[in-house]
Amino acid sequence: MADLAAATNDAIAAASPALFELLSPLGRRAYFPPDIPFQAAQARGKTYNATIGQITDGYGQAVPVPALGDALSGLPPAPRNRALLYSPVEGIAEVRKAWRAWQRRAVPDDVPSTLPLVVAGLTHGLAVVADLFGGEGRAIAIASPFWGNYRQTFAFRTGARILSAPAYREGRFVPTAWVEALAELPAGEPAVVLLNVPSNPGGYSPDRSERDQLVASLFAEAEKRPLLVLCDDAYTGLVYEDDIPRESPFWELVGLHPNLVPVKVDGATKEYSFFGGRVGFVTFPFAPGSEVAAALESKVKGVVRAVMGSPVATTQMLLLQALESPDAEAHVEAIRLLLAERYRALQQALEKIDERLMRPLPFNSGCFALVELAESLGVTAESVRQHLLEHHDTGVVSVGQRHLRVAFCSVAAAAIPELVGRMERGVTELAAERARS
Amino acid sequence: MADLAAATNDAIAAASPALFELLSPLGRRAYFPPDIPFQAAQARGKTYNATIGQITDGYGQAVPVPALGDALSGLPPAPRNRALLYSPVEGIAEVRKAWRAWQRRAVPDDVPSTLPLVVAGLTHGLAVVADLFGGEGRAIAIASPFWGNYRQTFAFRTGARILSAPAYREGRFVPTAWVEALAELPAGEPAVVLLNVPSNPGGYSPDRSERDQLVASLFAEAEKRPLLVLCDDAYTGLVYEDDIPRESPFWELVGLHPNLVPVKVDGATKEYSFFGGRVGFVTFPFAPGSEVAAALESKVKGVVRAVMGSPVATTQMLLLQALESPDAEAHVEAIRLLLAERYRALQQALEKIDERLMRPLPFNSGCFALVELAESLGVTAESVRQHLLEHHDTGVVSVGQRHLRVAFCSVAAAAIPELVGRMERGVTELAAERARS
Repeated sequence: MADLAAATNDAIAAASPALFELLSPLGRRAYFPPDIPFQAAQARGKTYNATIGQITDGYGQAVPVPALGDALSGLPPAPRNRALLYSPVEGIAEVRKAWRAWQRRAVPDDVPSTLPLVVAGLTHGLAVVADLFGGEGRAIAIASPFWGNYRQTFAFRTGARILSAPAYREGRFVPTAWVEALAELPAGEPAVVLLNVPSNPGGYSPDRSERDQLVASLFAEAEKRPLLVLCDDAYTGLVYEDDIPRESPFWELVGLHPNLVPVKVDGATKEYSFFGGRVGFVTFPFAPGSEVAAALESKVKGVVRAVMGSPVATTQMLLLQALESPDAEAHVEAIRLLLAERYRALQQALEKIDERLMRPLPFNSGCFALVELAESLGVTAESVRQHLLEHHDTGVVSVGQRHLRVAFCSVAAAAIPELVGRMERGVTELAAERARS
Repeated sequence: MADLAAATNDAIAAASPALFELLSPLGRRAYFPPDIPFQAAQARGKTYNATIGQITDGYGQAVPVPALGDALSGLPPAPRNRALLYSPVEGIAEVRKAWRAWQRRAVPDDVPSTLPLVVAGLTHGLAVVADLFGGEGRAIAIASPFWGNYRQTFAFRTGARILSAPAYREGRFVPTAWVEALAELPAGEPAVVLLNVPSNPGGYSPDRSERDQLVASLFAEAEKRPLLVLCDDAYTGLVYEDDIPRESPFWELVGLHPNLVPVKVDGATKEYSFFGGRVGFVTFPFAPGSEVAAALESKVKGVVRAVMGSPVATTQMLLLQALESPDAEAHVEAIRLLLAERYRALQQALEKIDERLMRPLPFNSGCFALVELAESLGVTAESVRQHLLEHHDTGVVSVGQRHLRVAFCSVAAAAIPELVGRMERGVTELAAERARS
């Protein structure tokens, strides 16, 4: 068994010594064991197949209870059947191919990327990368404020160490935040950089010039150390200003520097507005079919097998219907346009707010805006959140001491002026209370 | 934050000092952080709710791409909507209630069990328990042969140490195998016992007398150490002989000894023949609403959040249709009867096999039978598997050196005599080859 892990490690080291150095202890041990799913994969298509512990009619067709079959009657018989049975551990082949085509619709042919591996939503993709490339003491650079769950996925679970630097300075985005976070790390020590473009909670995507600075800073950092750049592409495509690049930074980072390996985590959750489905993907910057792609696939499958057996077949097959629809792009664009309308409504409403109370940080994409409370008020974001819940029938998210995250993706455009009005009234009331006490 | 983890630990220690001792280092740190899902849960029902990063029409309704909505048109509008949006981290309330009722249909009211927590299939439930109660060096007792993935979930991921003893001796089941596996462990050292009834790969459930011996041996072991008894109830209900108990051993273990804490992992995968759905549950032996139930719920949610954000809403809502069907029990029973027919066909076919080649180990339940190759032949299970694949268009699973696992759940009853015939011919050919060389 140790031989099988060693074979995957050798293939990775041959293709990218930096990537091998970046593997965690768990990542080095990981491979897809030759047990039941492995043996079942070898027996696929045999006339007498008694390998898998799943109930079929004896000829490969599912045997659902009637209510389940009925609930999935919107699927044609063949996809319905596959929706009810186990997915291969790497994901359903057609879904992987269709997602790769979707990912690459604006990408030149000569930029390599693997066939994506299916995971159970974006977070599971992050957890898989955390297992393989995180681990005790590993430095993870993230610009702050950042999505709190990164802490759970990397630090709480694997013992990695989050290093952070501000993403905004004097109300402006700082493209060098990630390398600033790594400034104290000794040269040569491997690190993970976590990019989230468009960002959560910031709702920000760098413009062309900022993106060039970001990429240049990562290139310079890769001169110092092996760098895994994890692109959390949850919000890819949701960009509302014409001069802001829409494509994931992943594609610009492929092949940039031998010490820099980008990994793409994306999925149907936001891109196809399929939140309940938990269909995510992990993609590496190597040619499909290459030895290093096979080695990384083995490692990812080893981790997925250990944590959840196999990914969700049902929602993969549902997503496949959407991916294969001739109007897929137009349908996704319609959702972007719906959010763009809310985005503009929020921009307009926030412009009118008294800056002595709060001001928005720059935002242009994704699902959120961050509003910064004026320091002079002396009120915390959490106290504002509680006050809005209790007295204004309004929910927002508090981020750190002084920021509120507004999810405009789930508020109708028509309701946004009133939402912002309530935030303004709530902050005014709290500040007055504070001044009195 | 450390306070919130400490509060969950205190509640657990107060209700069950043994369970507190059993927590892994990760388990002690785990709690559900008060970040976005926590804040979103507080904002549920507010008129202006800008907490969650999910795309809705602004009034809580999903905005699917048309192909996805169509594919789920077999669901009524309200469940369809919930199928498309995020599940709460603990699972959808109605699903948890309906599953609890399903679990307890033959259980006396005075036996406590929590509202089950939803996870992404049985394996994910095992992984959650492994995170909370496994960890470096922790002893896990499993009777062998056992499902290989236990090794991935407990040992590979968390560093736990699997201790094993034979489940069969001279062709008979050994109910004391689990405590035999723990014989060398110093008294006082906490351990996990992993029970899988009906078993994979054995297809065996203890009869009444064997079960009494098993329970008595666990009681005696609990005199020596804190014992977490993880009941992997994947195959619950699939029992084909009238004199074999059908209920999970979990229910007999609740409240048996203060040092013994059973945990139940079960799900829709086999019980509702919903393999692709990945809906599993984790249930603890405490009253719903108790402080210890809330503390364990916080810890499980912390781990689920870190690994996959939230469980699959889509397949929970599909399962709910089946659970709420007035004929649910009859539909599940129809599947059991289908498998019972295959079980009998396999029993009959195996009876006719030449014992000098191979013989079945006792089986009476679940999805599988184990066939033991005669030692005198000198052929390995793996060589038989490869030979059957190559020359007999037949797939079975090799388990260790001398066992073949036959998944009768996926072979039609009419095909079973031919399947067994091919196994017999394949073994005969290999043995002859071996004798010649």
